Amino acid sequence: MININTNTEHIKSFVTDVELSVYKDKVAKTFKTIYEKTGAGNDFLGWTSLPSEMTTEFIRDIKNQAETLRKKSEVFVVVGIGGSYLGARAVIESLSHSFSSLINKDNDTHIVYAGHNMSEDYMVELLELLDKKEYSMAVISKSGTTTEPAVAFRILKNHIEKKYGKDEARTRIVAITDKEKGALKTLANTEGYKTYIVPDNVGGRYSVLTPVGLLPIAVAGIDIEELVNGALTIENYCRENQNADNVVAQYAVARQALYHKVKTNEILVSYESRLQYIAEWWKQLYGESEGKDGKGIFPASDIFTTDLHSMGQYIQEGLRNLFETIISVERPNKEICIPLADSDLDQLNYIAGKRLSEVNHTAETATMLAHVDGGVPNIIIQIPEISAFTIGELIYFFEMGCALSGYMLEVNPFDQPGVEAYKKNMFALLGKKGFEDRADALRKRIK
Amino acid sequence: MININTNTEHIKSFVTDVELSVYKDKVAKTFKTIYEKTGAGNDFLGWTSLPSEMTTEFIRDIKNQAETLRKKSEVFVVVGIGGSYLGARAVIESLSHSFSSLINKDNDTHIVYAGHNMSEDYMVELLELLDKKEYSMAVISKSGTTTEPAVAFRILKNHIEKKYGKDEARTRIVAITDKEKGALKTLANTEGYKTYIVPDNVGGRYSVLTPVGLLPIAVAGIDIEELVNGALTIENYCRENQNADNVVAQYAVARQALYHKVKTNEILVSYESRLQYIAEWWKQLYGESEGKDGKGIFPASDIFTTDLHSMGQYIQEGLRNLFETIISVERPNKEICIPLADSDLDQLNYIAGKRLSEVNHTAETATMLAHVDGGVPNIIIQIPEISAFTIGELIYFFEMGCALSGYMLEVNPFDQPGVEAYKKNMFALLGKKGFEDRADALRKRIK
Repeated sequence: MININTNTEHIKSFVTDVELSVYKDKVAKTFKTIYEKTGAGNDFLGWTSLPSEMTTEFIRDIKNQAETLRKKSEVFVVVGIGGSYLGARAVIESLSHSFSSLINKDNDTHIVYAGHNMSEDYMVELLELLDKKEYSMAVISKSGTTTEPAVAFRILKNHIEKKYGKDEARTRIVAITDKEKGALKTLANTEGYKTYIVPDNVGGRYSVLTPVGLLPIAVAGIDIEELVNGALTIENYCRENQNADNVVAQYAVARQALYHKVKTNEILVSYESRLQYIAEWWKQLYGESEGKDGKGIFPASDIFTTDLHSMGQYIQEGLRNLFETIISVERPNKEICIPLADSDLDQLNYIAGKRLSEVNHTAETATMLAHVDGGVPNIIIQIPEISAFTIGELIYFFEMGCALSGYMLEVNPFDQPGVEAYKKNMFALLGKKGFEDRADALRKRIK
Repeated sequence: MININTNTEHIKSFVTDVELSVYKDKVAKTFKTIYEKTGAGNDFLGWTSLPSEMTTEFIRDIKNQAETLRKKSEVFVVVGIGGSYLGARAVIESLSHSFSSLINKDNDTHIVYAGHNMSEDYMVELLELLDKKEYSMAVISKSGTTTEPAVAFRILKNHIEKKYGKDEARTRIVAITDKEKGALKTLANTEGYKTYIVPDNVGGRYSVLTPVGLLPIAVAGIDIEELVNGALTIENYCRENQNADNVVAQYAVARQALYHKVKTNEILVSYESRLQYIAEWWKQLYGESEGKDGKGIFPASDIFTTDLHSMGQYIQEGLRNLFETIISVERPNKEICIPLADSDLDQLNYIAGKRLSEVNHTAETATMLAHVDGGVPNIIIQIPEISAFTIGELIYFFEMGCALSGYMLEVNPFDQPGVEAYKKNMFALLGKKGFEDRADALRKRIK
């Protein structure tokens, strides 16, 4: 039994059943390609079995480490970028109080992020915060030489050693990195940091269910066992249902079919603002996996009804190259009703007594129908509630959906060759050795 | 003297000078259409002269009111959606400490938002916060019947009256609404709330320099006089430079020219995460103004270098229908250098001693060149620093740029007919009187 359902009813006026039926064989073949590891990038399929291979001892070790850090930390800094931070942030924000930083619950450890940008103001302001708070941190980098987290960690390492002394500092730093090689691994060995391994066969954007995601998520006080169990149900379900009726395959097929109808922008929509970073994580997963060789669906996201009052006009009546994927949440976790008012000035008494979520859901259905009528196909991914378990399911759902989509698009869903281009230019312009020729050529273009 | 510059050098390999020269006459004519109020939607051109028409008394009144509210509020709730909240949030987040909610500075009033979604969990969690904090609020709605803020205000009005009693509560509520008619105006008169006016001739998405934006911004402790003065310099500059050399016109022309080359997705990029909500505000401004009649540029946004590690691959090598507009900030407000490390394990000693902002800037140039080489034109909008003054300039820059763009695209940049479609469906499905026929038709489609 899984909790996720995919509803593709509302793409039917854009794609015919005959057109969809073509994908039947393709889906079966693609599952085979994945499980038999015969496709491009097959060195990076470790994510497929992460949930089933996770041991209780491993989970317990992460939980214990997290508890130790939580006890002495008002703030926990996650130093990482891209796949080394988005998964953790997505899960943490989905499952945290909307005002967690303001409400100051006792014993709460608040997660903040560093090394995911190079804003000087942001870094100084982070240090201002860390001057005032008890803190610890995880530094997450396979190599240890990615510029953004490496720069941030240089600065933060100095800060934490000055604040606590070198001995205490080393108990407040956890390194999540390669199992044997790389700058961070070497440093961690020298300094004696507790370390966790980023597996070789899992790429950054598929790494949330490794220590990369699990340690920060556990420090945030979230039940990682539930998260992994949720993912496990979809892992098992996919292995047992390698066909086009599989809910994951339905999503992958729907978006491929729409892409071939020149619906080239996908907007991931949620009516719960706490899912915003699930969308950011999803953008990396799909954008980086599919956006190559001059093709791929452009991933965008909106929170509704908020953005119906900003992007709504465009979606209803702008260029018709869009489709939407809604993450639909059946039940809220908390409860409030709309009160009756004596004077019905705002004309809302007709919905007084209703749960707020009922109105939110009605807006969802109403909008879906309006957008479909306006020429925007809608895919609906339904989950019963937001919990560690269902977020775990959603993670595996999107990971497998992405692998299926990428292979059906005939790209390697596990590489990212284009990410190097700006880095090479940056090294050249910063004067790194070995990039001198490139530097000259670039400088001519900007002066 | 203005502080903004537009650099269109890096669209030149995509659009020829001859192609751009066509816009010379068009720009002059379009400025004329705006200032002589002869175009579509000319009832909504009040925003063009808001800065110059603002009186010192008006500013002083808002400042005084804001100070009164600040003194008694740890939290200030802005109840509004779309144009009734995005402008304020954009300015406030641009000019606030990155960790303002965690760092608990004395006398800080923290701004939170409500009525911009209908999440039940979010609303309950907001009330949990407000149970613990001294607070006041602004309710912002021209009509007072927009569902989201009206629902939120019903709930919050009950809460604040229960917490403080009716008499004190009314001193903690400010209504920003129509000058004479509508549900909120009537309620404010009955209850005796302090009220501010949303001018008739300014649409929601152009309203940040009215009390809609100015009161919350002032409550956040930001100098609204500086903000307005910044906007004023661009207002004056535009009136005096109604030609294609105008930096605002350069932006409008560049994006129109690129749109006609089928560059239909515009990504607004910043290397400062605090500008994220400037992008959200800009999305409404441009998306809602241009996205109609089956046309318009799809507005998206990224924060770099953060999103170079998620969207970077797609931008470098995906579908080639993209262009980027960078908001480039010359100087940070704070200062930190990259420290030297004894062991150069992370290989960063070659940039030790450099300001972090220098590396950030180099990444910006490096990325721009890499993306241009990959087939993505870049427009650069340069500001010297982030301050109330330059943010004011940026606001007017984008507003005028949007009006010019919309008219050149031959749409009415001041209406939003498509926003009604989902609302009508929602009223029908919620059982509002007068929508019975529509309700029957819709219900058939979803069961």
